[in-house]
Amino acid sequence: MRERVTMADVARAAGVSSATVSYVLSGKRPVAPETRAAVEAAIEELSFTVNVTARSLRTGRSSLVALIVPDIANPFFAQLAASLQEELRGLGLHVVVCSTRARRDEERALLAEAVQQRFAGVVITPFRLKPEDFKPLVDAGMPVVVSADVSFGPIDLVTPDARVATRRALERVAAAQRRRIAMIAGPRDATGGDPRLKHLRALAPRFGMSLPHELVIRGEHTREAGAAGFGELMNRRHRPDAVFCGNDVIAVGALDKAHELGIDVPGDVALIGHDDASFASLVRPRLTTIRYPAAEVGRVAARLLTERLDGRTVHRTVHVEAEFVARASV
Amino acid sequence: MRERVTMADVARAAGVSSATVSYVLSGKRPVAPETRAAVEAAIEELSFTVNVTARSLRTGRSSLVALIVPDIANPFFAQLAASLQEELRGLGLHVVVCSTRARRDEERALLAEAVQQRFAGVVITPFRLKPEDFKPLVDAGMPVVVSADVSFGPIDLVTPDARVATRRALERVAAAQRRRIAMIAGPRDATGGDPRLKHLRALAPRFGMSLPHELVIRGEHTREAGAAGFGELMNRRHRPDAVFCGNDVIAVGALDKAHELGIDVPGDVALIGHDDASFASLVRPRLTTIRYPAAEVGRVAARLLTERLDGRTVHRTVHVEAEFVARASV
Repeated sequence: MRERVTMADVARAAGVSSATVSYVLSGKRPVAPETRAAVEAAIEELSFTVNVTARSLRTGRSSLVALIVPDIANPFFAQLAASLQEELRGLGLHVVVCSTRARRDEERALLAEAVQQRFAGVVITPFRLKPEDFKPLVDAGMPVVVSADVSFGPIDLVTPDARVATRRALERVAAAQRRRIAMIAGPRDATGGDPRLKHLRALAPRFGMSLPHELVIRGEHTREAGAAGFGELMNRRHRPDAVFCGNDVIAVGALDKAHELGIDVPGDVALIGHDDASFASLVRPRLTTIRYPAAEVGRVAARLLTERLDGRTVHRTVHVEAEFVARASV
Repeated sequence: MRERVTMADVARAAGVSSATVSYVLSGKRPVAPETRAAVEAAIEELSFTVNVTARSLRTGRSSLVALIVPDIANPFFAQLAASLQEELRGLGLHVVVCSTRARRDEERALLAEAVQQRFAGVVITPFRLKPEDFKPLVDAGMPVVVSADVSFGPIDLVTPDARVATRRALERVAAAQRRRIAMIAGPRDATGGDPRLKHLRALAPRFGMSLPHELVIRGEHTREAGAAGFGELMNRRHRPDAVFCGNDVIAVGALDKAHELGIDVPGDVALIGHDDASFASLVRPRLTTIRYPAAEVGRVAARLLTERLDGRTVHRTVHVEAEFVARASV
């Protein structure tokens, strides 16, 4: 365990008073933007967290934190859960994981349960929730952290910065003489659409490529959807020679289908995943992917949550850098 | 959805009165062993479950069911969670998954939380708990189902019957001309030891093989332990030519180490997993394993739990048949 960082340490690093740090955290008094930035940088740098145990006892909340995810069978979320639990254990908090099958009714039901059970907090990767669905939690004073590619309003957010990694992936694809890229993306009605698709489409022209609508397949984040999407792409008159996937679960499904059709990856078609879930290094060929570091996401989420438990009321957004991981599928 | 089975249907199938079915479920009056057996067979056959929503509202319990497992990153448990959730959804119950890292202190803490939070019920795969650790739950009237290879006292139990499957695995290993078997098993201090090891040791002589102590490695149910155990076995003067693993996570670790050492599976050493977690069909070579069907285990656990919620007080044990799955690692 690293040594405990105190509010005084943060104040010292930021060159402000402890009271100022407290104001930044609680939002109880206005703080100049530059001062807030300095304090937030120091919090980030020192990995500052607050001691919540006493507070949660005072408030009568339970010691349970709900991690609400679309798919418990996606190892990315298992890794996120493990990291979150690891960080929160020292504070006497237990993480319980709930799976919504990416359905808005189940997402809403679980948020309602968290409020009713007086959970200590919620970390959620929403899929079809709307920003207004968070209102009951905010009204109840429930600490919430969203881990997602898009913002859900004035709620703490951990979000990927995948621009550099996506550019690297495209560089690699171009270096492998691939020109006709496709994507098996998420469904149209996911909240915020699919930012991974938007990034890819925006960056492709820099490499002399484009991502036409007919080479984008929309579906759920499942192995079945990956297989179906890959099959559909291989039926096109002009087949793509590189397929990007919305996540690694989709990519594993695409690989299933490639094996079934006798299509060689990467010989015939290159395949690029997203997340670097444990799946990615297990399959053959090992999957080239854009790593979104689950353990780091868990650590950031834990930090944001504990700050909330300690009374911070202004919302924060933390970007976690994604990284291109070259393996054997491009 | 299948049609709703009523207590009257069960009574009809068993050739008894509805009152008798009710007595079997609640244990409130003694029932002759043959009658009980007939009722339990009918319950099994008809997949009878009881309507718990009204009851749980009456008792003031929450709608949450805790699934407590040693390792949330083991896809076997993710699949079990999905199946349990699927079965309980119709009753308005939500499954929350908690990971104990196979530590008794965390297992105990989570059981205590479940009682304190008045959860609707608990399904648990204990690892280092002792039977006496369940007393607080039994005292609190909390419905509990254990999913494990060994009994934890008078608690409902879903447990594998892997004798036939283990025999098939040994037949296959013998047919591949392997004679020197080894096992990477669970830790010594897991409750009940390692029944999978006991089965294997008991059955090996029928195939002219034995499992000497020096070819049994004990460790955690982790990928790291699998890699370390396989490395250790490959360092023995007389290397084994077939390695059984306590579960598929261990087997994936063993395969990691085989790749690292340049050892061919199955050319040099055959490898056999246990569970048929999704890992097993993803790795190359695809893993020959003993399937313990997670979805069926989830369905049985859901049924036992709902019976408890409806008032059954006598405990039941249900065996789920494991099955040998021949793939490419033997």
